[in-house]
Amino acid sequence: MPNTVETTSMSETIVRSVEGLRVTVAAWRRDGKTVGLVPTMGAIHVGHLSLVSEAKARCDKVIASIFVNPTQFGENEDFDAYPADEVHDVRELSDAGTDLVFCPGRDDVYPEGFSTIVSVTGVTSGLCGPFRPGHFDGVATVVAKLLLQCLPNVAVFGEKDYQQLLVIRQVARDLNIPVDIIGAPIIREADGLAMSSRNRYLSVDERALAPQLNRVLADVAAAILTKPSDCQSICRNAREELLELGFMSVDYVSVCDTDTLDLLKSYTGSARVFGAARLGTARLIDNLAIA
Amino acid sequence: MPNTVETTSMSETIVRSVEGLRVTVAAWRRDGKTVGLVPTMGAIHVGHLSLVSEAKARCDKVIASIFVNPTQFGENEDFDAYPADEVHDVRELSDAGTDLVFCPGRDDVYPEGFSTIVSVTGVTSGLCGPFRPGHFDGVATVVAKLLLQCLPNVAVFGEKDYQQLLVIRQVARDLNIPVDIIGAPIIREADGLAMSSRNRYLSVDERALAPQLNRVLADVAAAILTKPSDCQSICRNAREELLELGFMSVDYVSVCDTDTLDLLKSYTGSARVFGAARLGTARLIDNLAIA
Repeated sequence: MPNTVETTSMSETIVRSVEGLRVTVAAWRRDGKTVGLVPTMGAIHVGHLSLVSEAKARCDKVIASIFVNPTQFGENEDFDAYPADEVHDVRELSDAGTDLVFCPGRDDVYPEGFSTIVSVTGVTSGLCGPFRPGHFDGVATVVAKLLLQCLPNVAVFGEKDYQQLLVIRQVARDLNIPVDIIGAPIIREADGLAMSSRNRYLSVDERALAPQLNRVLADVAAAILTKPSDCQSICRNAREELLELGFMSVDYVSVCDTDTLDLLKSYTGSARVFGAARLGTARLIDNLAIA
Repeated sequence: MPNTVETTSMSETIVRSVEGLRVTVAAWRRDGKTVGLVPTMGAIHVGHLSLVSEAKARCDKVIASIFVNPTQFGENEDFDAYPADEVHDVRELSDAGTDLVFCPGRDDVYPEGFSTIVSVTGVTSGLCGPFRPGHFDGVATVVAKLLLQCLPNVAVFGEKDYQQLLVIRQVARDLNIPVDIIGAPIIREADGLAMSSRNRYLSVDERALAPQLNRVLADVAAAILTKPSDCQSICRNAREELLELGFMSVDYVSVCDTDTLDLLKSYTGSARVFGAARLGTARLIDNLAIA
């Protein structure tokens, strides 16, 4: 075993260097194994574990990465507060069947002199794009790197971050990265709240209110099936309802084409409803298919 | 043989699709062969053939690509005039020992909906960067694509386009593309003119004048070894000399650090002199190491 591979007391395998990752993946390749990658920023919850399950169903070996990527956080965002507990995260991922957890350091990902950005237009222009300048450049760049460090057969991302999923699919297609990008369904709490690492920021009262975002989006989807040409007024009413319920601010409630994320005034058969709203220090996002 | 592979009457193998390229490379990989890539825009001359030789010296199999990349030409540049003669180019590359010539169509490289840009800061900020806005984004993006379509062990680029070489090296390093980027020495005509596809634009009189660019840059290098702290005045005099000789305009004569391309006022041991000047419709560039 190369000296870049460490074995913890829990006998889970953590790799911290790109070289170590490649040595392990190359050995698997020689044995004819297929490889799935699940990139994460840690703060592992059941949603992440469902991505591991999805990767395991498709591949012989599963790698999860943990890297809190500074370049996808805005200046006033929660990079410093982002929850980090590597021992817990690695144990959860390993118990779910992850074969290797890749935990690069900041200097491994962004060595001195790093100066390349991968940028996507089109699918980044609406929804979270204008509210998080630079965010999707950060996502596109770090995910391109992770895909090329690992060269997996498939990589799995949650539909909770649906716009991110489309950005990554676009990067892989446009740059000819030889990987299948798989979207996995949103995992929700019993009350409908989409699972998210950022739910940990919610106070008890905020947590009680948070599932209303999903409920309001579901009502939007139902209303649009009844009045397909009324997307704009239905979404406007939904934004007002969220504010009345107690959300601090609403970045958007929008109906967009499933593939292009073009904003739709009329529903024509392949669309999702997207919402982003702020509750205390948490910015919650959610989305669901209209059907 | 897959149906995307065509055999010409000269029995050279041209592949036009990414799928066809990958089938061939995968077969070579199964046989344990290493692969070298020489990306070109066609208009093949002896300089390109030296890159093929360099790749052959390092790898079992050599692929050359021919693609005149529209995104690296500016609005008023010579995209429409760029010389194209595929039959000649493929014959030259094959005679030099190229095993496969990859000739993708524009829609293979940039399918509808293409919307990703790879951008490099730092090494692009000086020299040709300000004179060719968007050029290095176009180069970085298309070369990232070619590298990922082919996944060669090494890729070879000429030092004639030295800034381009550093941009590509930066992209490969920053995005963790698993390839060695090799720079090959400039090949010159007997009178010192650096070989370039764009030399074909020169009239007889312009062709007679063109080698003066190399001569002036060589004089700059010699002068700087004598007076290492006089980079600025030596370069200024060189620009004036080129104009007096009959060059229409001089974009720059500059001394830059070999690795960072930072502009140097004083020579401190690892630097090159770079020049770009216009002669008729041709924009000529050249560079050489100071040593």
